[in-house]
Amino acid sequence: MKIALAQLNYHIGNLELNSKKIIDCIKTAEQSNVDLIVFSELSVCGYSPLDMLEQKDFINKCYESLNKICSFTKNTAAIVGLPTINQNNRGKKLHNSAAFLYGGEIKKLLHKTLLPTYDVFDEYRYFEPNDIFEIIEFKNYKFAVTICEDLWDEQRTFGNFDREMLYKNSPLEILKKHKPDMVINISGSPYSYNQATHRQEILFKNAIKYSLPIIYVNQTGANTDLIFDGGSMVINSAGNTVLKCEYFEEDYKIINIDQLNELPPIKNINISPEKLRIENINKALVTGIKDYFYKSGFSKAVLGLSGGIDSAVCLALAVQALGPEKVDVLLMPTIYSSEHSISDSVEMAKRCNVKYHIINIEELRQKYIDNLSEIFANKQPDVTEENIQARIRGNILMAFSNKFGNIVLNTSNKSEAAVGYTTLYGDMNGALSVLGDLYKTDVYLLAEYINTKLDDIIPKNIITKPPSAELRPGQKDNDSLPEYNILDKILFAYIEQKKNAAEIEEITKYNKNIIDFVLKLVNTNEYKRYQSPPILRVSSKSFGFGRRMPIVAKFN
Amino acid sequence: MKIALAQLNYHIGNLELNSKKIIDCIKTAEQSNVDLIVFSELSVCGYSPLDMLEQKDFINKCYESLNKICSFTKNTAAIVGLPTINQNNRGKKLHNSAAFLYGGEIKKLLHKTLLPTYDVFDEYRYFEPNDIFEIIEFKNYKFAVTICEDLWDEQRTFGNFDREMLYKNSPLEILKKHKPDMVINISGSPYSYNQATHRQEILFKNAIKYSLPIIYVNQTGANTDLIFDGGSMVINSAGNTVLKCEYFEEDYKIINIDQLNELPPIKNINISPEKLRIENINKALVTGIKDYFYKSGFSKAVLGLSGGIDSAVCLALAVQALGPEKVDVLLMPTIYSSEHSISDSVEMAKRCNVKYHIINIEELRQKYIDNLSEIFANKQPDVTEENIQARIRGNILMAFSNKFGNIVLNTSNKSEAAVGYTTLYGDMNGALSVLGDLYKTDVYLLAEYINTKLDDIIPKNIITKPPSAELRPGQKDNDSLPEYNILDKILFAYIEQKKNAAEIEEITKYNKNIIDFVLKLVNTNEYKRYQSPPILRVSSKSFGFGRRMPIVAKFN
Repeated sequence: MKIALAQLNYHIGNLELNSKKIIDCIKTAEQSNVDLIVFSELSVCGYSPLDMLEQKDFINKCYESLNKICSFTKNTAAIVGLPTINQNNRGKKLHNSAAFLYGGEIKKLLHKTLLPTYDVFDEYRYFEPNDIFEIIEFKNYKFAVTICEDLWDEQRTFGNFDREMLYKNSPLEILKKHKPDMVINISGSPYSYNQATHRQEILFKNAIKYSLPIIYVNQTGANTDLIFDGGSMVINSAGNTVLKCEYFEEDYKIINIDQLNELPPIKNINISPEKLRIENINKALVTGIKDYFYKSGFSKAVLGLSGGIDSAVCLALAVQALGPEKVDVLLMPTIYSSEHSISDSVEMAKRCNVKYHIINIEELRQKYIDNLSEIFANKQPDVTEENIQARIRGNILMAFSNKFGNIVLNTSNKSEAAVGYTTLYGDMNGALSVLGDLYKTDVYLLAEYINTKLDDIIPKNIITKPPSAELRPGQKDNDSLPEYNILDKILFAYIEQKKNAAEIEEITKYNKNIIDFVLKLVNTNEYKRYQSPPILRVSSKSFGFGRRMPIVAKFN
Repeated sequence: MKIALAQLNYHIGNLELNSKKIIDCIKTAEQSNVDLIVFSELSVCGYSPLDMLEQKDFINKCYESLNKICSFTKNTAAIVGLPTINQNNRGKKLHNSAAFLYGGEIKKLLHKTLLPTYDVFDEYRYFEPNDIFEIIEFKNYKFAVTICEDLWDEQRTFGNFDREMLYKNSPLEILKKHKPDMVINISGSPYSYNQATHRQEILFKNAIKYSLPIIYVNQTGANTDLIFDGGSMVINSAGNTVLKCEYFEEDYKIINIDQLNELPPIKNINISPEKLRIENINKALVTGIKDYFYKSGFSKAVLGLSGGIDSAVCLALAVQALGPEKVDVLLMPTIYSSEHSISDSVEMAKRCNVKYHIINIEELRQKYIDNLSEIFANKQPDVTEENIQARIRGNILMAFSNKFGNIVLNTSNKSEAAVGYTTLYGDMNGALSVLGDLYKTDVYLLAEYINTKLDDIIPKNIITKPPSAELRPGQKDNDSLPEYNILDKILFAYIEQKKNAAEIEEITKYNKNIIDFVLKLVNTNEYKRYQSPPILRVSSKSFGFGRRMPIVAKFN
């Protein structure tokens, strides 16, 4: 039996586009005598439609799409994902379902059992868990169809205290009574830089535990903050990968499941995990930018180039995503800007082949100071005046955006966002934060990777100079913050690993005062991050939708 | 038996403050020979701590607080709410629990069964539902203790299609086998202008259905966007209210449950529902402002007075919440500002007795235009130049805030936020949106109410003039938008009632083009609202945390 894995890039709510993509693949499969083609979780509507799921019209359209797709199935059967209405009298209104289509008929609807409701996932907000465990019998094969998290029955609970198992049951453990020949998992699993390996391990473990091959189909592409990396694959019952789709690209591959044991295991490419991590972060962020623009109908970006490493890396990513002709950069010096901040930026813009515009904002800065001089009489300059500069730049970028239709890319990194070393309505402006989930030390690694890949596109001086916001004479980031290698270790332990101050001290051996200082900065800047643009998520715990902290609260 | 209802205002994460408040009440109760004192849901930590619940230290501190509180119970027993650790091997790590404390001992922990996971509620993100149904036996009485949503077993699912019942079981239906004498419900139920009546109906219905009296204890005060209205009460088994705590205030009342049937029913005050609604909105917003400042340690506010109704109402609310001496207002005219916008604002500031500062921003505006003239050469003026004005004002407000420590209040209303008739990083600035959940037509009603209450504090001309953003010559809101009475009806049907275009046409009889135009504006402005300040929630569907729409998506 030939099964096709269709790894596509769906657009949330764009049911016409999604069904066209799905139907095109079904037609292709039909032509090459594929028996079954498998699409990913919620492929009909895109993952995740969030509260669009509460709209009647939206659900009706999903059913319409399903019927249309179904009408194109002839000799090739298909499995697609969509929300369906719960037929029971009580419980959540919807199921997160897999529809098995064959010969123009909806043969079966199966539902997701384990509904992730943590981090960026809110599935229990919408869906009732499955409690009927059926399998699909098709052409002498029995398929245990599972949906994404259904294979993650050993998922741990958050945090690091006490018990660990999040779910109370295991769909495969229940389904095995039907003696399936194979597991199919349709997935909407977003990328994070530790997810790809973890996911593969889960699949291996399940294949070996149940002695069953697994066909895993994930989506690719990005929907605002969530980036999907694809990596669909087939694992044989010995736990070896025998087929693998590309990462961060649409892909379509066929496997003959009668010959699974004859296929040689695919070896992992010979690359260090750390190098692979950075390479994938580059791919993820490029995908994130590209799809934000493509799916929202924009093509041109603008960003402010400061001469620092963040805006340089952001530009290099934007150029990879959109092409140099679609990116404008603005240089907005004041009296506090160093000579090299201009010259490095100009050099960077030239190497990237993008249009740059120098708008000196010194007079504007001065005009604000004059305008406020009466009301600020007898007050010393402080962070107010620094913020004014950042906010003028934010305004100029938005004016450029309003006038020419370029979308502003935000260039702040995760370290800054964590400690609030950013100006609200200034350098926090933008439609999309490109680096907001990347610690400063990772931004450096990414810069080096990009320079290897793109022929030293980032001038060396931008990478080697000490980080500075240049908002007052001689300012350096480490005047107010610990060095980034220290800061980032503390932040990672606190945010990603959820360690407390004592544990962080134990792990890092850093001074307690420094740790307390950093944690306090993180906690007292929730109000700023609340108003941040959406952040492209590449870690297991990004600021934004997946990390919900109260604003008005007393922290430790 | 004497039972005390303790309706307190808790501060999330401020375990010391909360336990001090609880202990003080226990001591008071002890002195007046109260048998049992009841506090509200998650009273130990405040509702809702959100992802603070994922921190080990936080949970440990909740247990420490519980032990401390417990040590103060002697002859008076107490019921408090807190998160506790799920002792089962599998499932969510925590329960949302009620602890029954007596004689210095934790006698019993009971858990919440129905976990709201919709709108602003994410309880299943953290909590495992209860599946052990026990009651508390104390001094010859049997109490069925329920937690908030546990009484809402007939909660409907969202939207308006198909089936309606959200929950699969009914805690009271199960608990009745124990033949309880009374129901206790500890609650963390936020205010919305249709919630108070609905809540009372649910309590009446349950009392009558089970023929049991109900003691209902809710919290009061606000935590960022959520405002709790209190209104704790006792219902007898005939469904009559026999005791009622204040709304929007801390309160403490004692009832003798041996005499429940002898107490006369409390009549509802004789006020029209619509008048009561506006009166409560005023109370809610004042509470929201007051607690935002108090709980985040700030005392002073600043806002921009435009001469329009929104900023005037916002000022009147801020003055009620913080006192006139704690509020500064800025008037920031340009060449497009009408004469009356200044004179009305000055008059408003004087009537409110607040400090006002006139900062003419015309030269700054001109300076931006000059600065951008080269890059904007051959481009006609458009919304860019209008936004520049709004953003200068935003900057000046933030500069004032940075220099003097006054927190910026955002003055946009819900109608504007819905259709994106606001400037990101301009008039969308602020730490807290005061009117962001109030449609423009309700802002007018609130203005009239405030003028009745506060001796015409808002000058008549501010209420009667046609709404205008004054960002270009002769501009009026209804140049670009339908009249607000039409707009608001469409918005309410779409946002609160989740109707689709065809249904809205059916309800309102408005022109289809107008409806489509409005819905399109709502859908295409998700990106703006994503970066909005937190909004004080007064409706059943506020923008922000309770309404989660994808940004990059195709809508109808």
